[in-house]
Amino acid sequence: MAYNIPKLSPHPKTFLRDTGIRSTPTPKDFETFFYTQTLDHFNYRPESYTTFKQRYVINWKYWGGANASAPIFAYLGEEGSLDYDLAGIGFLRENAPRFKALQVFIEHRFYGQSVPFGSIEEAMKNHNIRGYFSSVQAITDYAEVLMYLKKTLSTPNSPIIVIGGSYGGMLASWFRLKYPHIALGALASSAPILYFDDITPQNGYYSVVTKDFKEVSENCYNTIKMSWSEIDKIASKPNGLSILSKKFKTCELLNKSSDLKDYLDSIYCGAAQYDHPPRYPVTQVCGGIDGASEGTDILDRIFAGMIGLVGNQSCYDMSQDYDPSESEWGWQTCSEMVIPIGRGSNDTMFPSEPFDLKQYSEDCKNIFGVSPRPHWVTTYYGGYHIKLGLHRFASNIIFSNGLRDPYSSGGVLEDISDTVLAVHTLNGSHCLDILPAKESDPQWLVMQRKKEVEIIEGWIKQYYADLLAFKKSIEEHV
Amino acid sequence: MAYNIPKLSPHPKTFLRDTGIRSTPTPKDFETFFYTQTLDHFNYRPESYTTFKQRYVINWKYWGGANASAPIFAYLGEEGSLDYDLAGIGFLRENAPRFKALQVFIEHRFYGQSVPFGSIEEAMKNHNIRGYFSSVQAITDYAEVLMYLKKTLSTPNSPIIVIGGSYGGMLASWFRLKYPHIALGALASSAPILYFDDITPQNGYYSVVTKDFKEVSENCYNTIKMSWSEIDKIASKPNGLSILSKKFKTCELLNKSSDLKDYLDSIYCGAAQYDHPPRYPVTQVCGGIDGASEGTDILDRIFAGMIGLVGNQSCYDMSQDYDPSESEWGWQTCSEMVIPIGRGSNDTMFPSEPFDLKQYSEDCKNIFGVSPRPHWVTTYYGGYHIKLGLHRFASNIIFSNGLRDPYSSGGVLEDISDTVLAVHTLNGSHCLDILPAKESDPQWLVMQRKKEVEIIEGWIKQYYADLLAFKKSIEEHV
Repeated sequence: MAYNIPKLSPHPKTFLRDTGIRSTPTPKDFETFFYTQTLDHFNYRPESYTTFKQRYVINWKYWGGANASAPIFAYLGEEGSLDYDLAGIGFLRENAPRFKALQVFIEHRFYGQSVPFGSIEEAMKNHNIRGYFSSVQAITDYAEVLMYLKKTLSTPNSPIIVIGGSYGGMLASWFRLKYPHIALGALASSAPILYFDDITPQNGYYSVVTKDFKEVSENCYNTIKMSWSEIDKIASKPNGLSILSKKFKTCELLNKSSDLKDYLDSIYCGAAQYDHPPRYPVTQVCGGIDGASEGTDILDRIFAGMIGLVGNQSCYDMSQDYDPSESEWGWQTCSEMVIPIGRGSNDTMFPSEPFDLKQYSEDCKNIFGVSPRPHWVTTYYGGYHIKLGLHRFASNIIFSNGLRDPYSSGGVLEDISDTVLAVHTLNGSHCLDILPAKESDPQWLVMQRKKEVEIIEGWIKQYYADLLAFKKSIEEHV
Repeated sequence: MAYNIPKLSPHPKTFLRDTGIRSTPTPKDFETFFYTQTLDHFNYRPESYTTFKQRYVINWKYWGGANASAPIFAYLGEEGSLDYDLAGIGFLRENAPRFKALQVFIEHRFYGQSVPFGSIEEAMKNHNIRGYFSSVQAITDYAEVLMYLKKTLSTPNSPIIVIGGSYGGMLASWFRLKYPHIALGALASSAPILYFDDITPQNGYYSVVTKDFKEVSENCYNTIKMSWSEIDKIASKPNGLSILSKKFKTCELLNKSSDLKDYLDSIYCGAAQYDHPPRYPVTQVCGGIDGASEGTDILDRIFAGMIGLVGNQSCYDMSQDYDPSESEWGWQTCSEMVIPIGRGSNDTMFPSEPFDLKQYSEDCKNIFGVSPRPHWVTTYYGGYHIKLGLHRFASNIIFSNGLRDPYSSGGVLEDISDTVLAVHTLNGSHCLDILPAKESDPQWLVMQRKKEVEIIEGWIKQYYADLLAFKKSIEEHV
C-alpha cells in the first residue's frame, strides 16, 4: 500500500454519482479559450521556451466590466479536468452576481485539455516532459494567464480573488503568498498545506477518519477496528481468500487480502472525507454495521456497512487497477507533493502502517526514475511555525475547513492574523463550502459560506478605498 | 551599444583601485564551505537533479550561538565572485558584534567558485547549462543553504536578515518577499527593482547622471552635452579618427568614434554611480573640465575631465573588449534581467539612444540563441503599483538608496508601510551604506547606517517577543 493516498480532490470519481455532479450539464454562458503557455518558466534552456495550450474558461454574465474595475474570481484548477469544476464548483457562480465578478476557471497543466504535446499517456511516459509537471510551474501558469487576462480586458485595477479546493486550495493560498501583486486574496478550501514534512503528525488523516466513525457510533468504530485481524485470520486459512471473496461478493476471486483491506480503507476514508449532508456517508456505513442483525459475525457487519454506503450490487470490484506510473496525481506525490500519511499501532481504528519515507522514495524512484523531494514544499512555500512567520507578513487568505474532513488535520485551523483567517465548521467535510449550495444545506454551512463572502467583500471594499486614495495621492503629486 | 548597461555591482573593476578593496586581504575568522546544490529546483526531469558545489563562507566570531537563537546575517551574493565581498562589504562585520550575529556570505551560482561543471567558459558555452543561470534559481539556492545551515547549527529560531547590494539588493528584497519563512527581514541596498518593463522611465538612469553633473557644475554639464556632436564632427572628417586618437591619447588607433563615446559614457556613468566621499568622482571629472585653461576647445576640456578621474597615463585603452557572449551579466540581462535603460533626444546630457526592445531581443537571440523574457521579472516578483500591492502585505524590508546613484531612479524611494521602508540620502551613491565605514564618512552617511541598524534591531526585538509569546501560547495549550 505504498500509494494508499486518498485522492486529494473535490470530486473523486467514487462519489460523483452521489453528488449528482457528473450528470449536471456544463452551464451556459461559459466560453472556452486556450492560452499559449510556457513549458518552463524558470529556466532559459532552449527547451524551456517550448509552449503548450492551456485551457481556461470564462463566464462574463455577471461581470461589472473594466470601467468599474469589477472583480475577477479565478478558480485555480486542481488535479483533474476542468470539466467537473465548471458545474461542480458553486462558489463562483453563486456569488458572482453579488460581486459583479468575472468568473474564470483555469485548468492545471497536465490535466484535462491542458496536456503538453498530445496525450497524457505520452506525456507521462516521457521523463523530460513529465519533469515539468509541478505545482510551482502550475501556479506560475496561473500568474501568466491572469496577467494576460487583465491586460487583454484592459482592466488593470480589477481585484482578483483566487479560489481553490483541496490541492487546488493549497495552490490558491500559495498563489496569494507568492503572487500578492496578482491576487488580492485567496479562498483556500480544505487545503492541507501543513501536511508536509513532519509539521502534522503522520496519523492526522486516519485519526480524523477514526474520530468521525467513533462519534457516529462507538459500536461501528469497534467493529471496524476489530475487523482487520479478522480478515487476516480468515485469509491465512486454506481457502481463506475464497471465503472472503464470497463473503464480500467480489467480482473476481481476491488475489490477496490486502485488496479487500484497501477497498474497505477507501470506503471509510471516502465516507469521512466526503461526509456531506444530507447523506452523511459515515452515518450510512455505520447504519449498515449497527443495523446488521445481532449475532452476525464481524465481517458480515462490515459487509453490511459497505452496502450501507455503496448499495446493493451484484458484485463488488475490488481489483486494484491503480497504476501509479500512469496516474498524474501519483506522479505529483512522487515528485513534489510528498504528503506523509501514516498510522501507528493502535492510534487509529486502522492497522498500523507507518509512513516510511525511505521506502516511499525507493518506490517512487522505481516507478518514475527520479526521487521525490520531500522537503521542497516546506522550503518553497513554508509551513513550519506558520503563525509566527506570517502573522506580520501576508494578508487576505481564508483557510476554510470542515473538521470531519480527514485532511483538515493538515489544514490551518487557527487565525494567523486579522486577515489570514481560519473558517471552519465542526460538521463540515472536504471542500463542502465551495460545492454548489442546496436547499437542504444545514444552517452551519449557510453561515460558513456567508462568513467567507463577507470577509472577501471586506477585502475588496478596502482595496477600492486604497485604490482611490492611491490615485488621489498620485494626482496630488502631479 | 546594445549592451551599454552599466555593470550592476558594488565593485566594478574600474573603481576597485580607488576604494582600496582589492588590496584588502580577506579578513581572518572566515571559514569556507561548499554546499551540494540542486541545479534545477523547479523541475523533475532527470537532469534537474544534477548537483554542483556552491561556495559559502562563515564568520563565527561574534555569534551568540544556537542556545540564544542569536541572529544570522546572510549576505546574498550578486553578479561576482564572493572574494570581493568578504572584504568589500562592511555592513556585516561592523554590526555583527552589536547583534551577536553569525555572518554568512553565499556566492551566486555561476560566479566565482560556484560554477556548475567546471569553468565558467564551458558553462557559458553550453546552452543547456547556462539555461539554469537565473535569479529565481539563485534565490532558491540561498533558501536551501540557509535552511540547511539553521538545521545543521541546530538553531531553528535564529532570525535571518538578508543583505545585498545592487542586483544582490534586488535579490535580498525578493528573497524576503518569496521566502518570508526563511528571512525575517532584508536590507536591499541600491536595488533598482522598479527598473523593469515600463515602471520607471527609460531615461531614469541617465537623467540622474545628468543631474549629478549639472549640480556640480553647469559649465561641466554643458561641455559634456556639447561634446558628442563635436566628436561626431571630427570623426566625420578625413583622418578624423586619427585626430581623435591623438587628442585622447588612445593606446591604439580608434576603429570607430563610438569606442571613444562609449568610453566617455562609462567614465561619466561610473563617476555618478560611485560618486563616493571623500573623492567624489563627479567633482573630479568636472574639476578637470572646469579647470582646463580657457580657450582650450571642447574636446580638450573633455580630455582634462577624463584625466581628472583616471589620472595621467601614457595612453588610454578604449578598445571594447567586452564580449557579451562571454559575460555572465550579459547573459543575465539577455534572459531574465531586462533593464530597459535608454535616453530620448535632449532629455539628458547624452545623445539620444532609446531602448529598443525589439532590437535588444534580436541581439540577445543572435548572441545566446534564446530570447529574453522582458516581462518575467514583473510577473514573478511584481513591481507595478508596488505601494498599493504591498502596503497591506509584506513587512521588514529596507530599500536604501543614495540619490546620486543613477540606479536610484529605479529604486523604492517612498515608504511602502511601517516596516517596508525607504531610507535614502541626498548625497549617497551606489551601495554606499553597506561598504566599509571610514573615519572620513560624512555625518549623513553615518546617520543612514545608524537608522538602518536601528530598524533591523526593531525587527529582531519584535521577533524575539513574538517567539516568546508564541512559545508561551504553545505551552499553555499543552
